[in-house]
Amino acid sequence: MERSSRRPRVAGGDPVVPPVAAPESRGERKERTRRAILDATLELCEDSSLVALSLRQVTKGVGIVPTAFYRHFDSIEDLGLALVEESFASLREMLRDVRRSDPTYQNIIDSSVKVLGEHVHSQHDHFAFIARERVAGPPAVRAAIRHQIELVERELAADLARLTDPEYWSTEDLQVLSNMIVTSMVGTTEAILSARPEAEQAIAEQARTQLRMVLVGALHWRSTGLG
Amino acid sequence: MERSSRRPRVAGGDPVVPPVAAPESRGERKERTRRAILDATLELCEDSSLVALSLRQVTKGVGIVPTAFYRHFDSIEDLGLALVEESFASLREMLRDVRRSDPTYQNIIDSSVKVLGEHVHSQHDHFAFIARERVAGPPAVRAAIRHQIELVERELAADLARLTDPEYWSTEDLQVLSNMIVTSMVGTTEAILSARPEAEQAIAEQARTQLRMVLVGALHWRSTGLG
Repeated sequence: MERSSRRPRVAGGDPVVPPVAAPESRGERKERTRRAILDATLELCEDSSLVALSLRQVTKGVGIVPTAFYRHFDSIEDLGLALVEESFASLREMLRDVRRSDPTYQNIIDSSVKVLGEHVHSQHDHFAFIARERVAGPPAVRAAIRHQIELVERELAADLARLTDPEYWSTEDLQVLSNMIVTSMVGTTEAILSARPEAEQAIAEQARTQLRMVLVGALHWRSTGLG
Repeated sequence: MERSSRRPRVAGGDPVVPPVAAPESRGERKERTRRAILDATLELCEDSSLVALSLRQVTKGVGIVPTAFYRHFDSIEDLGLALVEESFASLREMLRDVRRSDPTYQNIIDSSVKVLGEHVHSQHDHFAFIARERVAGPPAVRAAIRHQIELVERELAADLARLTDPEYWSTEDLQVLSNMIVTSMVGTTEAILSARPEAEQAIAEQARTQLRMVLVGALHWRSTGLG
């Protein structure tokens, strides 16, 4: 499977060589090492999990001495929380892309699935990290991911409130609908991450049909206890 | 959180003492050790994952010498596959319970959610194992879980075929609907596993509402290209 990341991969045990000619400031060097630690961690826990990762593996991957780690992070868990932060920053960027797109019903489904597929590829390592650590990470990391997903669900519920009739939809049911859509999209993401490239079109088609089914349900939904 | 399992927990490093008075046959002893290895593994990888588990940790947990492990399993992966097999055997039992229940629409939703909640508690360790290893386990274990979930989806699609009008529902769309329901139930399972007990009623209510939304969508669905 082809995997691309916006940032260059960290080589074996060598310190990272900066691609710039100008002398590097102390702040720049620190930021570069921090970045290298984050990238090495994404790569190292790809077939494992943060809970199985040792500080020594990380520092060896970056080419720094173990004690240097603590200039950047307090612990592996702290490093995990930084990766959660970063991953969801890119996810929110994705959601802004979807909102910017044409908001007719048919288009919103097609463009959502398209944008999701594109981001899962361009941000493969971050999506794989979240998919895995969401259920298998250290407790604090799992809680942080849960919290971020809840924020996404709340934002989507607010979007849905603008698209639905308040006469038929209670605030609670919009939240439930939002959770269902997000759960379905998480499922789609996991399916893309574990699928062979040739299966991807079928996964996208399934995701579109599911969103259409949800939409058909939504158009006929009447919350109980309203009106 | 209270967690119960049908089988007794394995104590620290001590060999398991059988609760029977009669002399134990060689086959019985072998089966008991195998069971102890399975249980110790479920417990040991609870806050971690199979990929982080060493053979030595397992044998130490059971109180056997490392080489004795190979009398029962070829590898940690092989042990993982046995746990997948066992977990889905209990899941299929759960699904039979749902099918045995009253198949009216309202009741099928309420009883499905109820049965799911009950099984997540009585089989907590197996459900937690599947939820975690599904995304974070060794590749062969992840593939085995994916395969088992596909079988569940196919069975559910066959059930749904009996409940829907073939004039409106294509075979492909029934499969997509089934996937959506299973994904939603996996989400509910994960939510129960990570929730505080007082949040569980709200999770069950959300699961019921989601199934109702899916049902409303299903009742108004028309597959394209049919009829």
